[in-house]
Amino acid sequence: MKIAIAQLNFHIGNFEGNLRKMLKATAEAKGKSADIIVFGELATCGYPPRDFVEFKDFIRLSEESVDELRQASEGIGIIVGSPTINPELQGKDHHNSVYFLYNGETILLQHKTLLPTYDVFDEYRYFEPSKKHQTVMFKGKRIALTICEDLWNVGNENPLYTTVPMDIMMKDNPDLMINVSASPFDYDHAADRLEVLRANVNQYHIPLFYSNICGAQTEIIFDGGSVVFSPDGSVYDEMPYFKEEIRYYQLEDVMKGGYHREQPKDKFTLIHDALIMGLQDYFGKLGLKKAILGLSGGIDSAVTAVMATRALGKENVRGVLMPSAFSSKHSVEDAKALAENLGIRYDIIPIAKPYDAFLETVKDVMEDKPFDVTEENIQARCRGVILMAIANKHGYILLNTTNKSEMAVGYGTLYGDLAGGISVLADIYKTEIYQLAAYINKDEKVIPESSITKPPSAELRPGQKDSDSLPEYSTLDPILYCYIERRLGPEEIIEFGYEEKLVRRILRLVNINEFKRHQTAPVLRVSPKAFGVGRRVPIVAKYLS
Amino acid sequence: MKIAIAQLNFHIGNFEGNLRKMLKATAEAKGKSADIIVFGELATCGYPPRDFVEFKDFIRLSEESVDELRQASEGIGIIVGSPTINPELQGKDHHNSVYFLYNGETILLQHKTLLPTYDVFDEYRYFEPSKKHQTVMFKGKRIALTICEDLWNVGNENPLYTTVPMDIMMKDNPDLMINVSASPFDYDHAADRLEVLRANVNQYHIPLFYSNICGAQTEIIFDGGSVVFSPDGSVYDEMPYFKEEIRYYQLEDVMKGGYHREQPKDKFTLIHDALIMGLQDYFGKLGLKKAILGLSGGIDSAVTAVMATRALGKENVRGVLMPSAFSSKHSVEDAKALAENLGIRYDIIPIAKPYDAFLETVKDVMEDKPFDVTEENIQARCRGVILMAIANKHGYILLNTTNKSEMAVGYGTLYGDLAGGISVLADIYKTEIYQLAAYINKDEKVIPESSITKPPSAELRPGQKDSDSLPEYSTLDPILYCYIERRLGPEEIIEFGYEEKLVRRILRLVNINEFKRHQTAPVLRVSPKAFGVGRRVPIVAKYLS
Repeated sequence: MKIAIAQLNFHIGNFEGNLRKMLKATAEAKGKSADIIVFGELATCGYPPRDFVEFKDFIRLSEESVDELRQASEGIGIIVGSPTINPELQGKDHHNSVYFLYNGETILLQHKTLLPTYDVFDEYRYFEPSKKHQTVMFKGKRIALTICEDLWNVGNENPLYTTVPMDIMMKDNPDLMINVSASPFDYDHAADRLEVLRANVNQYHIPLFYSNICGAQTEIIFDGGSVVFSPDGSVYDEMPYFKEEIRYYQLEDVMKGGYHREQPKDKFTLIHDALIMGLQDYFGKLGLKKAILGLSGGIDSAVTAVMATRALGKENVRGVLMPSAFSSKHSVEDAKALAENLGIRYDIIPIAKPYDAFLETVKDVMEDKPFDVTEENIQARCRGVILMAIANKHGYILLNTTNKSEMAVGYGTLYGDLAGGISVLADIYKTEIYQLAAYINKDEKVIPESSITKPPSAELRPGQKDSDSLPEYSTLDPILYCYIERRLGPEEIIEFGYEEKLVRRILRLVNINEFKRHQTAPVLRVSPKAFGVGRRVPIVAKYLS
Repeated sequence: MKIAIAQLNFHIGNFEGNLRKMLKATAEAKGKSADIIVFGELATCGYPPRDFVEFKDFIRLSEESVDELRQASEGIGIIVGSPTINPELQGKDHHNSVYFLYNGETILLQHKTLLPTYDVFDEYRYFEPSKKHQTVMFKGKRIALTICEDLWNVGNENPLYTTVPMDIMMKDNPDLMINVSASPFDYDHAADRLEVLRANVNQYHIPLFYSNICGAQTEIIFDGGSVVFSPDGSVYDEMPYFKEEIRYYQLEDVMKGGYHREQPKDKFTLIHDALIMGLQDYFGKLGLKKAILGLSGGIDSAVTAVMATRALGKENVRGVLMPSAFSSKHSVEDAKALAENLGIRYDIIPIAKPYDAFLETVKDVMEDKPFDVTEENIQARCRGVILMAIANKHGYILLNTTNKSEMAVGYGTLYGDLAGGISVLADIYKTEIYQLAAYINKDEKVIPESSITKPPSAELRPGQKDSDSLPEYSTLDPILYCYIERRLGPEEIIEFGYEEKLVRRILRLVNINEFKRHQTAPVLRVSPKAFGVGRRVPIVAKYLS
């Protein structure tokens, strides 16, 4: 039996595009005499469809795609995820389902049982869990078909669910497992995923064909890395990350094992490649091409510019240098050097005139109070207005260059440097930005050395440095990581040896700045806990604040 | 048996404040010889606690509050909602629970079974549903204790869940039901809630004591309206909306029925009062006092200013008139008249200087392209910068004045008129804003007549009117309502007789402007489907777009 895993990049709601991709892949697989082709979870409509599931029209369009695929299933088994209507009156109105189509018929319709409802996932918002677990006989082999999370209750001491679908399916003595997934990237997830899948294979001693999607949907990046396990628990093949591909496997070869091909998992290679896919899909799926960003001469805007240039091409990226009276000479020089290294267009537009005009305009209402964060914010907002003006006039999308450390503690100006259509680095701590810059510079010095070595500064008042108002990033970031990624409370963090006053101050900064994060762009997610849809915290609360 | 329902306004994470309120209420109830006092759902920690539930520290603090209440339960039964740890390894780590405390002991700990996971609710993200359903004997009466949604699977032809907790509890033949709730307001919800509760009473024929919370938590407004039903299905008493109160009921009197006291449910009275509570709690719970807003002379900013003045007091509200070359004379006059009617401070700050300075600054990069939305946005953003400057310098919070129709179709400028800390009217369609204005003006003409009667205009170019780029609101709003509140697709809306091209254009505008709504302030929720946390739609999608 020859099984094709089609690791494809679908687009939410783009039924025609998604169907076209699957029909093309099916034709190719037929040409290669595959017996089965496996697409990902909710492949017809794209994952995650979110509240679109609540529209009858959206479900109808998904079903029409399944109808087309059913017609294309002459001589080949097509396994494809799609939302379906729950025929029972009780429970949620829909199922997250997988179809096994063959010779114009549905030979199995299996619903998802374990519905991830945590972090970026909201599946129980939409779907009723399956109560039935059936296997299917196909060309002499019994197949256990599951959807993504259905395998995640195995190999876990504190499982999230009270049932294990594969335990039930094993009563039928299946010969192999096939799983269709939409499992998103974070820099730990590919390794974690392999562990969970291996635990299943070690539990059930049958091979596993795991088909993941790739591609970004706004902030969530799916990395692919579809994988085939031999029954002895070894990885027979792991498909590439961040790349569409179809691979073919002979079940008989997979059964034998002994072949071992895993993808490398270097953290910053993964993050780098994830950001590129994230940017390409944000622009590509919205039908956009051109990005603009402010270049301050600092490391964050430099790394953002590099990522944008690699994702979109240098002809589609434009930098704007907007010096003020407080900008140092080296800032402009570093920003120019970067733009020249990248070969991107840049403009130098000083902000003095609008800044002065604002000061004059609000002079009376400022009531002679001294220079403070107000005037700093006016500068940042002048830059925001200029960037948005060029973006509006010429059809650019503004890239936000904020990093995760700043985003966490609210070190940034709403409607100023926090503006932008998509936030490229806001899931990457400042200390990690340095590592990413080193990765970028490893073969060729793209980012000017002094952007990397100079002390970080917003340059919004004379001689300002980030360390005037924040602890050093080498102290700040680990504390943020404990609170955000690990969800540890103050006592637990203090127990690691951090100073109590500092810990409480940082946690307070994170919590009181939730109102800023509420109004910022979607953040390309690369960590296990990114700001945005996967982290839901009240604004009006009095906790650690 | 005397039962006290304590309808209180809790604050998320404010353990000390919440506990203090409950101890005070308990002391009062003891003084009045109550046998039981009933607080709301998750009263210890405030509802909805969101991801704070994932912090051990947060759960520990909730448990400490329960310990204090347990000590205070000498001689009185205290019924209080609080999160607890799920002792089982399988399933979610926590329960949404209710304690029955008496004489220093826990006499019942019941977990919630039906976990709302739709619209603004995310409960299955955090909580494991209860599998055990116990009743408790107290002073000769058997009590069935449930939490909010646990009663919502009755009287519903298409129920969301597959179990009915009360059906199970009825096997113990309870004498009465007590329910602790956190049921949020929308202008239909008080009536809907009574229907659901009545269906329970008619099903089980025992009295119901339903204790809801009141108060706003960021965008979600809880209206109270706690209610007591006699076993014959009649409302014995409905407590006021948007108000803390403790009321006492003799079970024997409730059993008799015949007494009937419901609250009036006029839509615009409810919306008006909801917005006031929403604003008071946004400011009050954040420890803030003062609001600022732009006054354009139009109806939206006028209604916002009225609501703010009624919520915060005229001494705490400041209006800013920011005319441009395109502002009509009557706009400034109408805005002044409004401010004077309200007795609020106002400033007149023309935007010409920064606007001209921006035009000059970006002149070269505009490449002689004609005046378009770019220049309109620059004006709106100049106003945003001025408002934020005054807000930053003097400690105001900027109120956003956008309405739901504009928010839906993206008729607004990001970082300009879409700026603000809280959006007061963005869940109210333009046609409803007129009705709210009429309600406000019913006794006294607070809003100038011409703000109400003149054609809506953004005044960002000469002679501009909203109807230049949008259909009339009387056509737009019903179509938006079909799509947003009713979640109907294009075919279904067209079947109502709307022109196909228009429907498709409007639905497309809604979908392609999701990126704007992603970056706007929280919206005070008054409808069954508000923009924000209760409506989750992908930005990068190709559906009706």
